[in-house]
Amino acid sequence: MKSRDATRRSFLGTGALAGAAWTACSAPEAEAPAEPDQPSSLGTPVSRYGQRSPHEKAARGVRESQTPEAASSRTPLDQTYGIITPSALHFERHHAGVPEIDPATHKLLVHGLVDRPMAFSVDDIKRLPSVSRVHFVECSGNSGGEWSPAGAPTVALSHGLASCSEWTGVPLRILLEEAGIQPEAKWILAEGADACLMQRSATLEKALEEGIVAYGQNGEAIRPEQGYPMRLILPGWEGNTNVKWLRRIKLTAGPQYVKDETSKYTELMEDGTAWIFTFEMDAKSVITAPSGGHMVDGPGFLEISGLAWSGRGKIRQAEVSTDAGQTWTEAELQTPVYSKAFTRFRLPWAWDGSETVLLSRCRDETGYLQPGRAELIEQRGRKSAYHCNRIKGWHIAADGSVTSAEV
Amino acid sequence: MKSRDATRRSFLGTGALAGAAWTACSAPEAEAPAEPDQPSSLGTPVSRYGQRSPHEKAARGVRESQTPEAASSRTPLDQTYGIITPSALHFERHHAGVPEIDPATHKLLVHGLVDRPMAFSVDDIKRLPSVSRVHFVECSGNSGGEWSPAGAPTVALSHGLASCSEWTGVPLRILLEEAGIQPEAKWILAEGADACLMQRSATLEKALEEGIVAYGQNGEAIRPEQGYPMRLILPGWEGNTNVKWLRRIKLTAGPQYVKDETSKYTELMEDGTAWIFTFEMDAKSVITAPSGGHMVDGPGFLEISGLAWSGRGKIRQAEVSTDAGQTWTEAELQTPVYSKAFTRFRLPWAWDGSETVLLSRCRDETGYLQPGRAELIEQRGRKSAYHCNRIKGWHIAADGSVTSAEV
Repeated sequence: MKSRDATRRSFLGTGALAGAAWTACSAPEAEAPAEPDQPSSLGTPVSRYGQRSPHEKAARGVRESQTPEAASSRTPLDQTYGIITPSALHFERHHAGVPEIDPATHKLLVHGLVDRPMAFSVDDIKRLPSVSRVHFVECSGNSGGEWSPAGAPTVALSHGLASCSEWTGVPLRILLEEAGIQPEAKWILAEGADACLMQRSATLEKALEEGIVAYGQNGEAIRPEQGYPMRLILPGWEGNTNVKWLRRIKLTAGPQYVKDETSKYTELMEDGTAWIFTFEMDAKSVITAPSGGHMVDGPGFLEISGLAWSGRGKIRQAEVSTDAGQTWTEAELQTPVYSKAFTRFRLPWAWDGSETVLLSRCRDETGYLQPGRAELIEQRGRKSAYHCNRIKGWHIAADGSVTSAEV
Repeated sequence: MKSRDATRRSFLGTGALAGAAWTACSAPEAEAPAEPDQPSSLGTPVSRYGQRSPHEKAARGVRESQTPEAASSRTPLDQTYGIITPSALHFERHHAGVPEIDPATHKLLVHGLVDRPMAFSVDDIKRLPSVSRVHFVECSGNSGGEWSPAGAPTVALSHGLASCSEWTGVPLRILLEEAGIQPEAKWILAEGADACLMQRSATLEKALEEGIVAYGQNGEAIRPEQGYPMRLILPGWEGNTNVKWLRRIKLTAGPQYVKDETSKYTELMEDGTAWIFTFEMDAKSVITAPSGGHMVDGPGFLEISGLAWSGRGKIRQAEVSTDAGQTWTEAELQTPVYSKAFTRFRLPWAWDGSETVLLSRCRDETGYLQPGRAELIEQRGRKSAYHCNRIKGWHIAADGSVTSAEV
């Protein structure tokens, strides 16, 4: 493995910034660039609620569908920066569309194996102790196309059913303890206020340790598509267990095997058995820049950047290969590294203009290393569409065009 | 000082959650709350770029003005969560309005005492090594009304010229070193592309150590009101030095004493001398909930929450008084605590329904403690409007109404 310092030295040594890509920069010998013209008119006044520049076009990927209420939209991960996903671009996966909910009348019912069934209004919940935590949410069907050798052509299509936000809300433990947890309670059933009453079972242990009833997202009220006025956050667990538009939590003795966890979100193994309640999302990484659909504008210095995350804790290490997996170099991680959150990795690189394949892989704090496709299939077979976390490659052609690398 | 644990015990011991404020909750003896009705229709389909709920009305505070291009708008800090300010609500302070800039033609000129003057396009800059850092930006005129005993009536008016974002961009050091820093260079002059060509001098040392040319904000492109397509970030320094719509950085031997740092942003002392280049923002805190204009809906448990920040590093401690300063209790800090960033503090509290005053104060990692108003005036006199960081109080009347506490 090359050290990062060696890469940096070679970047600085090559004077890559004065290379072919830097057509806008004057070489030392050339005439100095002119000062820009002075703007000639006043700009627009201050305003009450800002919008992005009309020059910015990043959008969630939406497929044509006969049932756009039971559909998904994908975060354009290659057009985001840092670790926060803009709320407007947070991926969606709905089963019955986005309900319109009045926060003044919405209630969260906590019942089942409790001493005192309680219904909490939004205002009730906002008076309670709160926490803010940065966590990813990922659909367990994310990267389903990566089971194939070809993989999806863009990072939005391959990994865009994952996003990361600062969530603010009340620890679920507080609500459950206020209602009084009975000794037989071992699981919860969470239910959303969408028309299909989306439901999932989860363990009481997870609910007590890490569950959050979130009403804030990236500093403002949670967005309608992400569960307004409140959603469940079970950090690191399958997106669908992070029930949106949360209206009911029932304490139960065991899992409920509801439609949303038996008709979907189970994994068929090669021997015909099925895995169910595979809650934790496995460690995964992907290079977002450059990525499929991009055109690298000539050789020279180029920062390789991407995202890594794990449902089991912090990312410990992200590595990048610029030679189709022959050698790997450790990338720098954006700090602080949060547990169960997007972790941005970055590696300086000088592209020599020849065809190659870029890969990334990550290791989480449990020591688990993201597998290649063959290794993943060896473990899990080919009958399931869920939980695909194999290494993804991007092919760069000599003309700079970037496509999914077949593996 | 009371320990936090003691406060928690008394909160849990009082059963405050079953108190008067919890009208929505059933008492143990009452009938269990009914399950909510099932929604009867599909919601809205997936979409390409999300918007907040129409029920959410949080807005920047804008005053009527004859010159809305040379004006400010204030973040409603009491309607934000966690430490990230939603970009749409980031405060504004413009001198000539928000320019409309095409990123395809915008250039950043680096010149002056350099070996190779260079003009960087947005695309040039995006290929370079990047960093993402969470930092506040604060107008040095923020809290100007707090020099008076009465103080401003709401937290937007008292502290809303401060906001906090995850900024992504290229370290300024890389651009300057690429241009070749000449030995005589000790300062920089930064200039914006607004119609007034807003300029500020800053030290080369700060530029090299911490300067960022930011093009990303909270995961997406920087917003027009915050400097699209790029702004300077000098973490912890007066907002006006974080020049927006950055188009020029000139390396100089000394400060330039430009109009924007002599006609404004200097501080007159009682003896008639003026302080200039008072770059660092002093440690400051304010309680955002409950705060001026709020109505506390009856006695019982209530989380006190607020924000603290310092231009000199990390917040080490935030304390809250619920008895007008007679006693102070350490609040819990949201972790991780970033340097030169908003730090959320929280304290559980059971309000007994009697009139009182809430205060907060913070200490940063240098050991500096936020002063009271009298102490601040002793140090700095009364002739300046800038850099007011005195302790702010909120008065709670017996009817629950919250107003600015006179000191």
